[in-house]
Amino acid sequence: MKAVTCQGGVLDVADVPDPEPARGQVLLDVLACGICGSDLHARHHCDDMAQDAAESGYDAFMRSDESVVMGHEFCGEVVDHGPRTRRRFKPGTPVVAMPLLRNAGGVHTTGLSTLAPGAYAEQVVVQDALTFAVPNGLDPHAAALTEPMAVALHAVRRGQVGKRQVAFVIGCGPIGLAVIAMLKATGVRTVVASDFSAGRRALATTVGADVVVDPAVESPYTCFEGRFITAAGLFELAVGTMEKLRAVPMLPWSKVMQAAEAAGANPSGPVVFECVGVPGIIGQIVAAAPLYSRVVVVGVCMGADQLRPAIAINKEIDLRFVLGYTPREFHDALQLLGEGTVDPTPLITGTVGLGGVDAAFTALGDPEQHAKILVVPRSDATTVS
Amino acid sequence: MKAVTCQGGVLDVADVPDPEPARGQVLLDVLACGICGSDLHARHHCDDMAQDAAESGYDAFMRSDESVVMGHEFCGEVVDHGPRTRRRFKPGTPVVAMPLLRNAGGVHTTGLSTLAPGAYAEQVVVQDALTFAVPNGLDPHAAALTEPMAVALHAVRRGQVGKRQVAFVIGCGPIGLAVIAMLKATGVRTVVASDFSAGRRALATTVGADVVVDPAVESPYTCFEGRFITAAGLFELAVGTMEKLRAVPMLPWSKVMQAAEAAGANPSGPVVFECVGVPGIIGQIVAAAPLYSRVVVVGVCMGADQLRPAIAINKEIDLRFVLGYTPREFHDALQLLGEGTVDPTPLITGTVGLGGVDAAFTALGDPEQHAKILVVPRSDATTVS
Repeated sequence: MKAVTCQGGVLDVADVPDPEPARGQVLLDVLACGICGSDLHARHHCDDMAQDAAESGYDAFMRSDESVVMGHEFCGEVVDHGPRTRRRFKPGTPVVAMPLLRNAGGVHTTGLSTLAPGAYAEQVVVQDALTFAVPNGLDPHAAALTEPMAVALHAVRRGQVGKRQVAFVIGCGPIGLAVIAMLKATGVRTVVASDFSAGRRALATTVGADVVVDPAVESPYTCFEGRFITAAGLFELAVGTMEKLRAVPMLPWSKVMQAAEAAGANPSGPVVFECVGVPGIIGQIVAAAPLYSRVVVVGVCMGADQLRPAIAINKEIDLRFVLGYTPREFHDALQLLGEGTVDPTPLITGTVGLGGVDAAFTALGDPEQHAKILVVPRSDATTVS
Repeated sequence: MKAVTCQGGVLDVADVPDPEPARGQVLLDVLACGICGSDLHARHHCDDMAQDAAESGYDAFMRSDESVVMGHEFCGEVVDHGPRTRRRFKPGTPVVAMPLLRNAGGVHTTGLSTLAPGAYAEQVVVQDALTFAVPNGLDPHAAALTEPMAVALHAVRRGQVGKRQVAFVIGCGPIGLAVIAMLKATGVRTVVASDFSAGRRALATTVGADVVVDPAVESPYTCFEGRFITAAGLFELAVGTMEKLRAVPMLPWSKVMQAAEAAGANPSGPVVFECVGVPGIIGQIVAAAPLYSRVVVVGVCMGADQLRPAIAINKEIDLRFVLGYTPREFHDALQLLGEGTVDPTPLITGTVGLGGVDAAFTALGDPEQHAKILVVPRSDATTVS
């Protein structure tokens, strides 16, 4: 079959052996596959990424001297089932699957390892147990975005955002936009989006951001200045709360203490989603964010980065680094798309055939032009349209 | 009265004006005051600390060119009440108080601001609403440690440690030791303590650590090698869990998903308490800690520090920076001491009079010799005993 291989940073359309579903696996014809920012990064820096993965206990991440078929955000049609599957799907059933494959005695990351070829290809093999039928006649192009939407759902859940808390989304690339959409889908009232690109800010509004900010003009936090507490305000709150309570005659201490807690002697701040992933951004957020900010780090910054711990301590910052999603989150993201609760289609700014993947990678360098480009193997298009 | 002043890094016993309790305040004779690590740091670096505090919205932190009376961990006897107090305490009542004082139109940090002189002195003024009677005849020297024990209780609560989770305490200075004691008091079964100093490791055992490790000899995490999941293990868990569930005939998807969650397709890691506060330690913990570690940063590291975000993301690390405590946590810490649930006395390695504070600051430089030294204003001792 035809597939796009990546080796030494070069993307080529090549003829590769037809994949065969092994025990517990399903073979799909690929309908559409999203190009992920981590694919752009892996093209040139996969050896660094492999080193980081190895330090976390995973040794089979793609290397630059290997020929890898990337693509892990996909929707396909069932062609065939491997042995020991319950053959749940009729041929032609549109499905999505978590990009994990059992192969060579281990489980590997589809599209980011030679042991689990991805979906920049006519066909892809997936794990039956991680495969879900596309519900409600959802458009396969929208269904292909289940994976990045699951990443966003996982980030939002890890952020534990209260409906009345302000959520700041720093960076409106595909993941930032997906986070905005998921925040609104889960009922968060106030979502503030920040991006230097006017095109990305327009997309942020389309997917539901309540306020959009150009950080070159103003800090996103200043639009809520005075709403968040400072250290001086916190001291005042602690003393003021206790003085009010002590003024109530005969109030027992246990009640005083419960009331002190209820009166917010330990207030909560906003939730900030870091969706940029460049060096310095975490330090900038720690320096600029309000007290008690919970910072969910979704953007992947390679190499070392700096921050000032004393500032993070003074502000009681909570830095939550997030990756991927659980099977349940992947399933739930698909349901949210199927129900129409979340519409990912504004993220899709172009499609291209296998012959245009190289051009698409280049086009994605310009945030004004593109967010998510889908690879459609059945298309002959060599330019993004 | 006599007090120890700090100016330009010099500690002197000086005669200062007798303090007078203003509206809502109480005057105490100081029985004992602990020397805190932040006092040692503020002696020479308070201008940097003031800069960090100002960036968090608090402008009145002590400066090196000011003459400040430090000391914020104290127990005293009530001498007199100021106006508009309910005179709850008989003269001579032993009490402790949160180190916050309303003064000059704001609330200031007792012992770390010229606007709220501290308890390295014969007398100190406190806020009536933040003052608590010492319960059950608790020894005033133990009661003086209410403040650092409240810091530890706050850190443990922010860490949300499950009784069956492994807790690692990195650094066994006074705060590390207090965290160990509080972890055991809250029923955490397995507490692993790590410190380069044999003396500190011995103290860690005394306050309840189940395992003590010399990081020069082995990593604290290796004693539980295999207990925590790796990235490869995580992939296997997700696929294996889903395959087991899919093998159950007719199990509806909602049940499959609930079961997947119950089966731990999103496992939890240990909780790591960073109680060292030197540059590099956060990065070391991120590099060495298991997947899903929740890292509670209690140690204060000044200046900039480095970490590798991609590693923190691969491990889904949660970095929680903590500071201080709520009025409720201060109250609860005092109750735990009063009930004997927590015994802070092993932390007390020496006492000294006002004339020996300079010698005590020097003595605290040697971790083999000392953890917490108490200043006892009624004592004439100029050397630590």
